[in-house]
Amino acid sequence: MSETSHIAFDVDKLGTSKGHLVVAKGTDCEALSLPIISINRGAGPRLLITGGCHGNELEGPIVARRLIEWLHEAQSCGRVIIVPVLNLPAVQAWSRTTPIDGLNLNRVFPGRADGSVTERIADAVSRLLLPMAETVFDLHSSPTWNFPPASTTHPIADADLMRKTLRMAEAFKLPLTLVWEHGDTAGMFDTLVQRQGKVFVCPELGGGAVSADALAIAETGVRNALIELGLVEGTAEYPKFRQKETSMTLETLLSDQLKSPTRGIFEPRCSVLDQVKQGDSIGILYPTDSLSADPIDIRAPTTSIVCAVRSGRHVEFNEEVAYLGRPLNP
Amino acid sequence: MSETSHIAFDVDKLGTSKGHLVVAKGTDCEALSLPIISINRGAGPRLLITGGCHGNELEGPIVARRLIEWLHEAQSCGRVIIVPVLNLPAVQAWSRTTPIDGLNLNRVFPGRADGSVTERIADAVSRLLLPMAETVFDLHSSPTWNFPPASTTHPIADADLMRKTLRMAEAFKLPLTLVWEHGDTAGMFDTLVQRQGKVFVCPELGGGAVSADALAIAETGVRNALIELGLVEGTAEYPKFRQKETSMTLETLLSDQLKSPTRGIFEPRCSVLDQVKQGDSIGILYPTDSLSADPIDIRAPTTSIVCAVRSGRHVEFNEEVAYLGRPLNP
Repeated sequence: MSETSHIAFDVDKLGTSKGHLVVAKGTDCEALSLPIISINRGAGPRLLITGGCHGNELEGPIVARRLIEWLHEAQSCGRVIIVPVLNLPAVQAWSRTTPIDGLNLNRVFPGRADGSVTERIADAVSRLLLPMAETVFDLHSSPTWNFPPASTTHPIADADLMRKTLRMAEAFKLPLTLVWEHGDTAGMFDTLVQRQGKVFVCPELGGGAVSADALAIAETGVRNALIELGLVEGTAEYPKFRQKETSMTLETLLSDQLKSPTRGIFEPRCSVLDQVKQGDSIGILYPTDSLSADPIDIRAPTTSIVCAVRSGRHVEFNEEVAYLGRPLNP
Repeated sequence: MSETSHIAFDVDKLGTSKGHLVVAKGTDCEALSLPIISINRGAGPRLLITGGCHGNELEGPIVARRLIEWLHEAQSCGRVIIVPVLNLPAVQAWSRTTPIDGLNLNRVFPGRADGSVTERIADAVSRLLLPMAETVFDLHSSPTWNFPPASTTHPIADADLMRKTLRMAEAFKLPLTLVWEHGDTAGMFDTLVQRQGKVFVCPELGGGAVSADALAIAETGVRNALIELGLVEGTAEYPKFRQKETSMTLETLLSDQLKSPTRGIFEPRCSVLDQVKQGDSIGILYPTDSLSADPIDIRAPTTSIVCAVRSGRHVEFNEEVAYLGRPLNP
């Protein structure tokens, strides 16, 4: 008998319950059992925390695991459901996309019950978990970028939801809160959740290697947000980033993306959260075919702040190499 | 007509010459043209600098490119040959191994003229470039590890060569000089060079994202080594790492490797160059099948210093998750 996707335990029970979200088998692979936990303290906010949407972003799964122990002690009301790893095949392969069908989970929402495995995961999350929450934190990071610990949202047309989302994002008190205009939002988890009028925050919990220091900042940020929601009593604290308590809210528009002028090796020449003036060097592009071709200096077109700059690596023509930004007007 | 591998310009000319190392075509792909530069100031040390042996380690290619400009002005004697990218197909794919034949260039030396493309690259380097140098710096890094900027060597049986190699490695004045006992050295570039009685240093120029700050430390290290060799006049400077001038020489033995006790998600709980006591937590291993299975604490077996700790990621059973070490006895 072929099973449909389902939650294999009673998530409504008071207290802490552990079990699995079963994603139905399909023609491409067997059923998946994704471990989930529900910490239910009765009336109050209803929050869903997910990690491991992209398999090469491990800050989310680790912070989610660390939160479980803390919440078990600290949560005073409401219900939190945590899925540390949404896309287990991708996490096991350390791959952004699912190795089985090559799809990006964050581009196939709301998914399809009869689709390939990535679409079936999205469908199970959309139909079974999302109705149980009014707020979603989907924990991401940026392994091939220099990216400060940040909480991000895309611009939202509904002004009231935008305001509520921004307040939630700022409650993380991470070094950067970023309103990120994005050119490729079809099928994103964000978009689905926001269409339902719910608050969705996408923390980008760092770039590069996943270190103990970066994880401590990331965990503090998510704890702050849980305190703001009222799930936990306590006082938020600003995590230190580069020995300082830094916290700024920026916006980055499509026109703020700097792209590679040709294929070659990109060298970052600036650091995240640097202030740059028009003409300052953001990075160098080295053509790889010949040492006689001059390196190309990629410069800031205007005074701005560096939200993120690509890790040194080979890039194709027209790939993003930096996101600049400026303080968000209130 | 099928060409054999060759150097397509006169590297012996005095001054700065640019051209290509042509790696012969084979049954698996066309000929490769690897850009190289020779800066020849006559009598003096003969040095070969290579980068991009592994395609997901971009610090080497970038630092190599940055050195070219500096050496053009600063080099006062001897000859330096620089190949910023040894394995162009791997760099373009951001892959440790060559995508065409799946081989690790640093395990196929001395290579084969009639082999697959990775073996042909190794063969061209071994036969055409290596005879022109008495010292080799092969620039590496560790994208999936927390690794301090380091210069490394494996233990060498020949005591005199070991002493000379260690002195050269320490001349980088990077935060860590590491004598690294390695279990898998067959086919390494190091081994080939050392069998010829030459000095080989493998700088590991950082871990995780390739940032402007990390590149500045890496470049300072290599410049220091060129000053020590006598190719450039000047004074070495200790680069700052975490706001401090740190420099220690450690050894890590096979018995110092900590491995994962099961498959799961590894969380680093220590930072590189931390001093740890017996029983201190190095990291946590979270089984991914169930949230009911307890996380496993991976602890230091003895007092030691953390040379490197894996980035947070999914690991298989028995994968290395940390290298511990201790001061090298003189």
